[in-house]
Amino acid sequence: MALIVKKFGGSSVGSVEKIIAVAKRIIEEKNKDDKVVMVVSAMGDTTDDLIALAKGINKEPYQYAREMDMLLTTGEQVSISLLAMAFKNLGHPAISLTGAQAGVKTNAVHTKGKIVDINPERILAELDKGQIVVVAGFQGLDMNGDPTTLGRGGSDTSAVAIAGALKADSCEIFTDVEGVYSSDPRVVKSARKMKEITYNEMLEMARLGAGVMQPRSVEMGKYFNIPIHVRSTFTKRPGTIIREECTMEDKEFNIRGVAHDCDVAKVAVLGVPNNPGIAHSIFAALAEANVDVDMIVQSIRNIEKNVTDMVFTVAITDLAEAKKIVDKVADQLNAIAVLIEEDVAKVSIVGAGMFGSPGIAARMFGALSTAGINIEVISTSEISISCLIKNSQVKEAVNAIHAEFFPEK
Amino acid sequence: MALIVKKFGGSSVGSVEKIIAVAKRIIEEKNKDDKVVMVVSAMGDTTDDLIALAKGINKEPYQYAREMDMLLTTGEQVSISLLAMAFKNLGHPAISLTGAQAGVKTNAVHTKGKIVDINPERILAELDKGQIVVVAGFQGLDMNGDPTTLGRGGSDTSAVAIAGALKADSCEIFTDVEGVYSSDPRVVKSARKMKEITYNEMLEMARLGAGVMQPRSVEMGKYFNIPIHVRSTFTKRPGTIIREECTMEDKEFNIRGVAHDCDVAKVAVLGVPNNPGIAHSIFAALAEANVDVDMIVQSIRNIEKNVTDMVFTVAITDLAEAKKIVDKVADQLNAIAVLIEEDVAKVSIVGAGMFGSPGIAARMFGALSTAGINIEVISTSEISISCLIKNSQVKEAVNAIHAEFFPEK
Repeated sequence: MALIVKKFGGSSVGSVEKIIAVAKRIIEEKNKDDKVVMVVSAMGDTTDDLIALAKGINKEPYQYAREMDMLLTTGEQVSISLLAMAFKNLGHPAISLTGAQAGVKTNAVHTKGKIVDINPERILAELDKGQIVVVAGFQGLDMNGDPTTLGRGGSDTSAVAIAGALKADSCEIFTDVEGVYSSDPRVVKSARKMKEITYNEMLEMARLGAGVMQPRSVEMGKYFNIPIHVRSTFTKRPGTIIREECTMEDKEFNIRGVAHDCDVAKVAVLGVPNNPGIAHSIFAALAEANVDVDMIVQSIRNIEKNVTDMVFTVAITDLAEAKKIVDKVADQLNAIAVLIEEDVAKVSIVGAGMFGSPGIAARMFGALSTAGINIEVISTSEISISCLIKNSQVKEAVNAIHAEFFPEK
Repeated sequence: MALIVKKFGGSSVGSVEKIIAVAKRIIEEKNKDDKVVMVVSAMGDTTDDLIALAKGINKEPYQYAREMDMLLTTGEQVSISLLAMAFKNLGHPAISLTGAQAGVKTNAVHTKGKIVDINPERILAELDKGQIVVVAGFQGLDMNGDPTTLGRGGSDTSAVAIAGALKADSCEIFTDVEGVYSSDPRVVKSARKMKEITYNEMLEMARLGAGVMQPRSVEMGKYFNIPIHVRSTFTKRPGTIIREECTMEDKEFNIRGVAHDCDVAKVAVLGVPNNPGIAHSIFAALAEANVDVDMIVQSIRNIEKNVTDMVFTVAITDLAEAKKIVDKVADQLNAIAVLIEEDVAKVSIVGAGMFGSPGIAARMFGALSTAGINIEVISTSEISISCLIKNSQVKEAVNAIHAEFFPEK
């Protein structure tokens, strides 16, 4: 007997036919004594349709955040009721529960709620009656008794948090890819589906540009120590399991994956005085404007003049804001110039095993060098190494690095 | 300062434009210190669209009544959130509440729930903050914490019950007619909009075929003694107030209205033994099959043979069932024949004032007689008199009676 939470996204329940197909699959795959909790998103375009209605009132409806939540939570309420009906119609007892009924308690930050607690009493009671319990993802109830939504990646987060509260054996996230790959399969043809990956590796992959799972739900899995099985809606093959420690057999590679992110820009502040507090004056101003800064490098430029260069990257979406701030600070600091370069990209390798395996960085740089790719900036974390390169060379770079660490068998 | 509950049906909030128009009107009409609770139905065809989705799972989705309620309650949740946004967008504080949040407690009879209690705490708290409170009609929460719907006429019932629980000054039901008329304006051109009508008169009108208000909500109004103001969504003219006692000035007519019902059929059981228990044997069998019987008349046919005729009417929708039952009983009773007549209609006059005004019945029969209309069956209640006539003569009959009691000025 196992207790399993299974999450299906909006495209998997995008029509009544798809909902019936999901119900059939779940019943087929279910062992007699398994307890199954389904967490589902709103059907296909429902959320967009609801937002369009609200835009008929005001073009920026999110200013009425509480009412947007009242509106948007109806989306999952439709899909859970239909899925529960589909189960019953196939002869299996089932019951739908809203986020509120499922005991998902959130803070009162409407449209961007955070789960603060889960009381799984009702879910457990319904499971004990032999029901498949169909829970609305993406939503909860705040302390005022008002419905809330969880924002981006909310349904995955709901699923993992509910699995945690139920002490489930696993949480399966059904999606349109077959799992987590060693690199983006659209870029690297020989990318391999990983059997396993640790929470920290997955978080680092997400941070560095791999988009399969939102960091939030991975963090939730890590918090509850619930294995997350990322797998395909369209096949029955096993996907990738995200867990605390990978098993022995999956440790054959020192690194777990190669990620890339083309939506970055390089900012260089040239010739700033090399005095204490200078870095702080630049980055404090950026932090105040909520601009995330990445890959910071400071290099001595001129010892005689005691000036240095500050180089860092920002997300391309933050570039305009960043430039405004940096120009101002550079002026105050009497810096020589501010250079912006948009034609850059970040390629990274991720792996908990690289710490303690010397030579990993050298192999990465070597692969890039052999491919004739110049590295502009390097930065490292405990479980990753990133290089900033020309945007136009991303595909070559990712393939070269991937071939180095995941040689074709 | 007044506390007013205003109910708008699905066609009044059928589009974003209409929702904005309703919000504008309410703000315009509102005195500064008035407290306003809006009760609204689902937008236009939403409910039908949701039912169509459920029919994609099973053609008879109402067998999954709990899940139908989970599905259908989303309809009002969409309209309340949009209406609350519309108020806010016009600069007036507003908040939407589901039936559950508004404290509407029902029994657990899904899709046909009955209100058992209302806890108006949250509504009162929001009113005290100066908000217009927008409540989802047609829905509540049962003792299991599951959403329920109230069935036919549910939104009107919600509105009146909430008005009752709030001890509101009045409950306004906005609809597509201007009020309650002395007769159906489509049949009688000179039909007059009544200023007032009592609960009992309105109930009797509804029972006798006048369709403005469902009896449920009128009964709820009577229970709480809340005046119900039936008025038009499209004009600002006052409509008709349903209340316990009509005021003096509106008592100029002895009768309140002329109703008609064409969906009836006459059943005659001829030559049944005139013994005790015979009536019971026929009507008990019909009651067991849930067939409502109306206008029962028993007349001595033949004193020598000690046999009588039993004549009664049933709703046309019950006729097939009724015929089957009556044929069987008639056979057991050795009745001479069972005659069915579908080409009949019932015309009625209603008025609490007719009791104690002798001659009212005579005036009705006289009007019919002058118009050359034959009366087949007569029945009376404390506040109504009904005549069964030929269906083809309904329009003439209603106009003749109306002209007698409501002479053109």
